Amino acid sequence: MSKFSVLILGSASATPTVNRNPTAQLININHHYFLVDCGEGTQLQLRKYNINFNRIHHIFISHLHGDHYLGLMGLLQTMHLLGREKELFVYGPEDLKTILDTHFKYSKSFLKYPLQFKAVDMEQSSTIFENDKLTVNTVVLKHKIPCTGFVFREKPKTRRINPKAIEKYKVPKYAINKLKSGTDFESPEGEIIKNNLLTHDSLPSYSYAFCSDTAYFEEILPEINNVSLLYHEATFLEKDKKLAKKTLHSTAKDAATIAQQAKANKLIIGHFSNRYTQLTDLLEEAKNVFENTELALEGKEFNIAESQ
Amino acid sequence: MSKFSVLILGSASATPTVNRNPTAQLININHHYFLVDCGEGTQLQLRKYNINFNRIHHIFISHLHGDHYLGLMGLLQTMHLLGREKELFVYGPEDLKTILDTHFKYSKSFLKYPLQFKAVDMEQSSTIFENDKLTVNTVVLKHKIPCTGFVFREKPKTRRINPKAIEKYKVPKYAINKLKSGTDFESPEGEIIKNNLLTHDSLPSYSYAFCSDTAYFEEILPEINNVSLLYHEATFLEKDKKLAKKTLHSTAKDAATIAQQAKANKLIIGHFSNRYTQLTDLLEEAKNVFENTELALEGKEFNIAESQ
Repeated sequence: MSKFSVLILGSASATPTVNRNPTAQLININHHYFLVDCGEGTQLQLRKYNINFNRIHHIFISHLHGDHYLGLMGLLQTMHLLGREKELFVYGPEDLKTILDTHFKYSKSFLKYPLQFKAVDMEQSSTIFENDKLTVNTVVLKHKIPCTGFVFREKPKTRRINPKAIEKYKVPKYAINKLKSGTDFESPEGEIIKNNLLTHDSLPSYSYAFCSDTAYFEEILPEINNVSLLYHEATFLEKDKKLAKKTLHSTAKDAATIAQQAKANKLIIGHFSNRYTQLTDLLEEAKNVFENTELALEGKEFNIAESQ
Repeated sequence: MSKFSVLILGSASATPTVNRNPTAQLININHHYFLVDCGEGTQLQLRKYNINFNRIHHIFISHLHGDHYLGLMGLLQTMHLLGREKELFVYGPEDLKTILDTHFKYSKSFLKYPLQFKAVDMEQSSTIFENDKLTVNTVVLKHKIPCTGFVFREKPKTRRINPKAIEKYKVPKYAINKLKSGTDFESPEGEIIKNNLLTHDSLPSYSYAFCSDTAYFEEILPEINNVSLLYHEATFLEKDKKLAKKTLHSTAKDAATIAQQAKANKLIIGHFSNRYTQLTDLLEEAKNVFENTELALEGKEFNIAESQ
């Protein structure tokens, strides 16, 4: 079963409240878990939603404001105490390594499992993760301190075998893999069977862009072009846009404008200032520009694709 | 109204669960708040129990294991974002200053209010706070890294004026303060009125000792002698005492034995290992040695004294 989903663990901006946790999201791509940002309390949020810590192999930290990373040390430590042995990759600004080292040094603690720290270039976008099915690219955002977003893009998928046609045309097992890449089948008798008689079109490749924290910044558009799902911070309403400008955050309208220009399929907004006790105004403001918008609220899972 | 209470914000040991937060306690002495330890998520626990952050002026950190301090950076930052201006005192191991500085350096954040860091001597007990009503002493515990407990002791209180007697003997206003210290009253006519005719006995002075994390360690007894309330960690049951020994933690029986030897009035136990899903066994084990024991559970407030 293929899957591509985003589970929201926190929707608050810098001052969390009882109902709103700081930023963290769990991306599930075919049951491989990627944690993006790790605000204070993320380990408890993961437990609340019954996430097996051992399935997380990659953690991406966008920047070093406390509400995006202060849960990391506790999570790493808990993974150790729960007996983790599998390697863990952490991607983030170079100075995050110093912060982690400082914690481990003074707590005289160590991790039983290998921790691979990968420093991210905060100046220019780059590919920081790649396997045969997926790439993760950074996107440089505009904030008070160096900050990158992360773009998850599935690679083009192979064509899907049509079992009935395989039987009908008596295609031997050894030839099946080749069909997935689109080549025709030549029978031992020299007969050519067109690939599209034997396979279905491949499934679409999905993508997700995580953009927090940032001022309105059109330079990100080429990096997030055509994503299936865009998360863009929307800390403020337009009526507070002076504050947005001062703090290098976005308004709901800014987020929606970016989604529209990027031709995203869907937008989710979060990182809400705690000055807004109810969030419908933020949602309405975004929807006025980009209709397919939802609030990125705690516990909400956005399924980009789920199919057998 | 005088008050002396302890509010439990976290009862978990190193791996928190959905229902058990890492260590933090709020001591309320006549409406002055003292925060003791500050595990991850403490700021949310404070919000949950409607504590006004601005009333906290003193934070004490026992040691640098993550479950006792990782909530501090977030709390300091939130105090700043909520507009705090009042000075805040933080007491803890010297290296905590380095950890805080590292966070502030890389997050390029600052605090609008003055933060006074007071390095605690981790080798020997000392008085780290004193005013006209209270002293706070450290007590050196036995743990994997340097760790101190904190003992809050009210100073002896003044005698309480008996308003009816004051009226009866026509004691003038200027003489009243002197009566509180126990001296007799001499009227302008030279008549001596015994102090005990004019005043009631002073209220008792209460005390609270916070001891976490520690192995069983009798050397703490002189420091915590006769306390009204003792918090002593009880990470394990006796049946797991090998683990307690290895990790330099205590069993419930250890905690109760210390309470008994210290002649504490009451014991509360906490810092429970997450291997115990129900805590009645820990409580029973302690009660077998020291009857007046309770579990230090999240949200529970222990009123040592509350009177008009």
